[in-house]
Amino acid sequence: MLAMGIDPGNAICGYGFVELKGNSLHGAGHGVIRTSPDMGRGQRLQYIYEKLHSLIRERCPDIVGVEKLFFNRNVTTAMTVSEARGVILLAVEMNGVSLIEPTPLQVKQAVVGYGQATKEQVIYMTQRLLCLDKKATPDDAADALAIAICSVHSWSAEKIWRG
Amino acid sequence: MLAMGIDPGNAICGYGFVELKGNSLHGAGHGVIRTSPDMGRGQRLQYIYEKLHSLIRERCPDIVGVEKLFFNRNVTTAMTVSEARGVILLAVEMNGVSLIEPTPLQVKQAVVGYGQATKEQVIYMTQRLLCLDKKATPDDAADALAIAICSVHSWSAEKIWRG
Repeated sequence: MLAMGIDPGNAICGYGFVELKGNSLHGAGHGVIRTSPDMGRGQRLQYIYEKLHSLIRERCPDIVGVEKLFFNRNVTTAMTVSEARGVILLAVEMNGVSLIEPTPLQVKQAVVGYGQATKEQVIYMTQRLLCLDKKATPDDAADALAIAICSVHSWSAEKIWRG
Repeated sequence: MLAMGIDPGNAICGYGFVELKGNSLHGAGHGVIRTSPDMGRGQRLQYIYEKLHSLIRERCPDIVGVEKLFFNRNVTTAMTVSEARGVILLAVEMNGVSLIEPTPLQVKQAVVGYGQATKEQVIYMTQRLLCLDKKATPDDAADALAIAICSVHSWSAEKIWRG
């Protein structure tokens, strides 16, 4: 079972793949999509959309987790990242893959077991849980792997629930 | 010269076409795209994207104006509408059409001549300026026509500026 996690962003958008074999999790690749401020707003969105659309089509994940955004201060940033999130959700839908939308709290709980965990704790536990030789970099890719781990948990829980 | 205006929304997304012939403006069609709350979030975005993509491809506007959002209170609403705005900008970019992003203030100034104009004044002046037999409905479609008028103004101003 292959899960993909996406950490939405306009300038840098992280992605990561996690494979569940039996009861153990393994990292199955990660990276980031970067767009330049020199690109127009539409161009940046098109670039993110096309890269993710190709990645999903190539790797055929069973589920894709896209983190829900949580902002309480900068509305302008929230709106820019949400525009990127819109085209990310479109890429998932266009490929007909099941979508999971974990909150930052759920991701921290799934990976560290504690909703108030720090960014460093999440990255450290992601490396441990996926048996990675070294820390996934940049942080956006590590976050995407954490989102993928959380999505596997949600998927497993739902599977048990449904029988 | 044909301009399209889009009033971004997740549940209801308005669009309108305005034609500039010589020095006069004419309404060239308007409507709304509605999505149901029963649809998944990705499905709604896909529906909006595909409808707008087809409309732009069929009508071949010279420019598309997509209103900039202005929110200062409800961040959750701002984020949902921004997701829709993301797929709208993608549809414009995919068709290679020039994008104009007027603010609500610029739209009001272009149509009523006054940045603090009410919604009713904008709708009334839109009908007058485009010589429409009756008020465009629903409001989201009338707003989209106002955005198209403003986009024609920006386009004309830029044309004069560039020579």
